[in-house]
Amino acid sequence: MSILVVGSVAFDSVETPFGKGDDVLGGSATYFSTSASFFTDVNLVAVVGEDFPEEHIEFLESRNIDLRGLSREAGKTFHWKGKYGYDLNEAQTLETHLNVFESFRPRIPEEYREAEYLFLANIDPELQMEVLGQVEKPRVIACDTMNFWISSKPEALRAVIARVDIFIINEGEARQFTQEVNLVKAARKILDMGVKTLIIKRGEYGVLMFSDNSVFAAPAYPLEEVFDPTGAGDTFAGGFMGYLANTGDTSEAGIRQAVIFGSVMASFNVEDFSLNRMKRLDYREIEARYRSFKAMTHFEGLTEVVGSV
Amino acid sequence: MSILVVGSVAFDSVETPFGKGDDVLGGSATYFSTSASFFTDVNLVAVVGEDFPEEHIEFLESRNIDLRGLSREAGKTFHWKGKYGYDLNEAQTLETHLNVFESFRPRIPEEYREAEYLFLANIDPELQMEVLGQVEKPRVIACDTMNFWISSKPEALRAVIARVDIFIINEGEARQFTQEVNLVKAARKILDMGVKTLIIKRGEYGVLMFSDNSVFAAPAYPLEEVFDPTGAGDTFAGGFMGYLANTGDTSEAGIRQAVIFGSVMASFNVEDFSLNRMKRLDYREIEARYRSFKAMTHFEGLTEVVGSV
Repeated sequence: MSILVVGSVAFDSVETPFGKGDDVLGGSATYFSTSASFFTDVNLVAVVGEDFPEEHIEFLESRNIDLRGLSREAGKTFHWKGKYGYDLNEAQTLETHLNVFESFRPRIPEEYREAEYLFLANIDPELQMEVLGQVEKPRVIACDTMNFWISSKPEALRAVIARVDIFIINEGEARQFTQEVNLVKAARKILDMGVKTLIIKRGEYGVLMFSDNSVFAAPAYPLEEVFDPTGAGDTFAGGFMGYLANTGDTSEAGIRQAVIFGSVMASFNVEDFSLNRMKRLDYREIEARYRSFKAMTHFEGLTEVVGSV
Repeated sequence: MSILVVGSVAFDSVETPFGKGDDVLGGSATYFSTSASFFTDVNLVAVVGEDFPEEHIEFLESRNIDLRGLSREAGKTFHWKGKYGYDLNEAQTLETHLNVFESFRPRIPEEYREAEYLFLANIDPELQMEVLGQVEKPRVIACDTMNFWISSKPEALRAVIARVDIFIINEGEARQFTQEVNLVKAARKILDMGVKTLIIKRGEYGVLMFSDNSVFAAPAYPLEEVFDPTGAGDTFAGGFMGYLANTGDTSEAGIRQAVIFGSVMASFNVEDFSLNRMKRLDYREIEARYRSFKAMTHFEGLTEVVGSV
């Protein structure tokens, strides 16, 4: 099944202790789509400006991403400028130029409206809600957000969450949103808002997934070289949703496998700036790393009582 | 097989956002021994002062911990005072009164010298080396340390590490010791010092274990109530070594199970102040939580190629 994603396509200027990239391809929908495209077909809804080069269009098309929902408006493309210190878990935003993204009102093309898998990338929750009003009844809806919307539009965000199946946020955002230091309590509060599955991203520490009756913990892949964490969360979401859409298996077991595929994709993405690693990634590497995740986390269950007391 | 542990027995005064404990039972060897005692017999070598109450002796004896190596000297027992903020991963030391611990020179009783399992808890690496000079040839030697020794006696610590099988430290300490931000690189540098297995503790994020040819990632148990993280690391080490000594299985699979038992024990210990949770813990709870760890981390391996590209 194909996925519909609504989010941003952007230029990023990123500096990390290991290098920098100026005006490179970025944006939540870009990372998501590219990652998901390794598993399934993707329909992208976003906006770019007149300055968005053909080269990036060609790259997205080379990934079989359907761009009929990518509108081009007068003005400049959204531009984010950020910096990371040695703690690569936390970006410092230096500049945000919304440009054409400022007046973005997602219009879902007629042929996308029956999407069965929908990802609402990090945009204004009021726009996320507008998207929900334009689609039929997707089988799986997932959404992301960021600290800015949690503090500025918490009610709109709650309304969106009540209508989605899977909510994906950062650890710090989960704490901020619920005003709860303890992550398990924070997770319970978010589940109480009506979401079925909550995925909390913890950067280099991996992911915790909560539902009403289970918890799943997945590590991040320990990498010797992390160059640029930009887009890791969206790349995770792309691998996660891509795998779900590919298999249609939304059982607990299927969702857990999807989390690992998401983690695999994120682990590749941070190995280079922008989407450079994605551009030279092939599916055999994805499978090999999935197997590494399995090997890295496996331990035997209990067969007998070993205790002395 | 029994374990020999050399470390501190202390009084702790601890404050967390969830309560406080004044002059409660603490110390690395205390936490380690108590935790290990759920799996095997423990021989403890440490020192206390004249003020150490009979009640604590009785508790340790009730856990079948052999106290022939616990000497009582003129003066006061080691006293540590610390505080935790909402980030329970990091303790702030307010006061350290070494007292009788200042002149501690571990003397291993004759009947302990053939110990097959030895844990060198966090003490001066020069004393750790003295212990190594007093024992025959243990089958498994593990050791811990802290930031203070890393900065004040790095050479002595390196000499100890070259002689142990398993080195257990915190994430921050691994970075500090190797001057390496990337944890995988830091781990490689420590393995190069001659240790076979390196266990890096990451607080609420769990544990990463490195050896020359494998990496194992184990999460921490997500708890709704964490009252006091004091002793979590030593309690981890106690469960880890206790299980190894119980089974004698030092294969990769056996060591991985030991890591999970260590994580289980640490997860209980932080549920209450001092050793209070250990005092009311029984083995069925330990087994049940081990099974929860298994359920919480399990995902299916790959059976077929799912990718579209």
